[in-house]
Amino acid sequence: MSAARISRLAVIGAGLIGSSIARAAREKGLADTVVVSDADPGVRARVRLLGFADVVAETAAEAARDADLVIACVPVCASGAVAAEVGPELKPGAILSDVGSVKGAVLEAMAPFVPPHAHLIPAHPVAGTEFSGPEAGFAALFENRWCILTPPEGADPEAVERLAALWRGMGANVEAMTARHHDLVLAITSHVPHLIAYNIVGTAAHLEETLTSEVIKFSAGGFRDFTRIAASDPTMWRDVFLTNREAVLEMLGRFTEDLSALQRAIRYGDGEALFAHFTRTRAIRRSIIEMGQETAAPDFGRRPAPGAAE
Amino acid sequence: MSAARISRLAVIGAGLIGSSIARAAREKGLADTVVVSDADPGVRARVRLLGFADVVAETAAEAARDADLVIACVPVCASGAVAAEVGPELKPGAILSDVGSVKGAVLEAMAPFVPPHAHLIPAHPVAGTEFSGPEAGFAALFENRWCILTPPEGADPEAVERLAALWRGMGANVEAMTARHHDLVLAITSHVPHLIAYNIVGTAAHLEETLTSEVIKFSAGGFRDFTRIAASDPTMWRDVFLTNREAVLEMLGRFTEDLSALQRAIRYGDGEALFAHFTRTRAIRRSIIEMGQETAAPDFGRRPAPGAAE
Repeated sequence: MSAARISRLAVIGAGLIGSSIARAAREKGLADTVVVSDADPGVRARVRLLGFADVVAETAAEAARDADLVIACVPVCASGAVAAEVGPELKPGAILSDVGSVKGAVLEAMAPFVPPHAHLIPAHPVAGTEFSGPEAGFAALFENRWCILTPPEGADPEAVERLAALWRGMGANVEAMTARHHDLVLAITSHVPHLIAYNIVGTAAHLEETLTSEVIKFSAGGFRDFTRIAASDPTMWRDVFLTNREAVLEMLGRFTEDLSALQRAIRYGDGEALFAHFTRTRAIRRSIIEMGQETAAPDFGRRPAPGAAE
Repeated sequence: MSAARISRLAVIGAGLIGSSIARAAREKGLADTVVVSDADPGVRARVRLLGFADVVAETAAEAARDADLVIACVPVCASGAVAAEVGPELKPGAILSDVGSVKGAVLEAMAPFVPPHAHLIPAHPVAGTEFSGPEAGFAALFENRWCILTPPEGADPEAVERLAALWRGMGANVEAMTARHHDLVLAITSHVPHLIAYNIVGTAAHLEETLTSEVIKFSAGGFRDFTRIAASDPTMWRDVFLTNREAVLEMLGRFTEDLSALQRAIRYGDGEALFAHFTRTRAIRRSIIEMGQETAAPDFGRRPAPGAAE
């Protein structure tokens, strides 16, 4: 089954993800017209200057009018409001999707506003950087990354395939699963890691002032990596923790129990327990490299990314 | 004051750090002769093949004989044994140093074996990758990284300067502080981050089997970065936690308290508290970039390092 080509693609929200979708769709010719809107007039002006949209619409409703596919690229808690605005504009057969890091809450928030003649297919591209805004996006962001679709029960297979084809066109590997399962997997792979990165950077900031400045000065591999994670968009992450509360608290509970065991091993000088634990975690790393999600190249002694200033 | 040139440099232990020192010293002509020894005959054979030593010595004692500078590049808990072996060989004016990530314990373990006519100047190059062994080292590892010297009270300034000059010659930025202060700063910048990275990867491994395999498959930015940290050498890290127990437990206590506060904010849906915390941590990241310890280039959508296989 070849998916019908997308004539008009509407991207609502021109942040890192939205602007990357618009750039990729244009660059790879995945839609005839790419329409971008943003609630912030300042961002709309920057999008015009950056030139990655065929049309910059004043409102989400205007962008969605006559679109085959509307993608809400906004923080999770704003997805309901976008659905409320664009819902009445959706033409028969149109697809409404999103890019949120939490899927159960998004489905719940958006579903009431989607008319029966349109399709709601939530999606989550597992990609990003710690930078925000329309300037931060780039067309290659999704290449060789996962995009997880969470179609609700009874979703139209043709609509799912049409959305999947767009994501594959942008270079992503597409998988489908239930929203509930997605939220559990992402809680441990992404949400809890971000939370503890935010947390340890906060702990460092609370130290005595002279100590904090030395922490910054001598920030080593571990901490420096955490600060990069902890520089991600605060609004997006607030919304993730507010909307994926149950799964995050469950995984955080397991994390804390395990940490207590390691802490106890340190306190009582149990070197064997520490060594055994540290050896087991190497195997997980190996699996990730084998699955092609990461190169084996070391970068603790961080070489600059290609094209980056030293 | 120009430091006296090093005629014979002895590197005890040919792992990631030792082999990088040998390579850098040779490449930059920082010593007339670079002698390398390793307790493992297999490693000695590989060092001969790799060819980064002028002389491969059978024992640490043999390597240290007549050396101006002996650097123990072994896990922290092995540094006392190395000092016991090389101590009697140290010639008048010779310097004994190390590269351990903990300095108080190293000083305590090595000091009793250093004769009064020699100098003990512990050091810690804040650099590394998650790889181990003589093949993993490279001459540029220390470039633009910190090397922290922790000379004991009353240390000979000329000896300190001679060691500092070697590290500067390898491209490092050298600072001096007390061992106690070093251990506190590193506990929060490096030791606790490594522990929680090891911990979360362990938590993921304990999940139901199907969930663990999906965690590996969909490992996103946060988790993938943690698995890299958690792939570091288990022996080295066991020793770090056994020997810097007090500072690690202190910092871990603060970390856990702070995490409880975030967890509570999630449980009670306190979005304002989460947003405020996530905004504050961005400032720390900015400071680190401004201090030149990191580039601003994003690499969550991880581009391969130069020369790495895709």
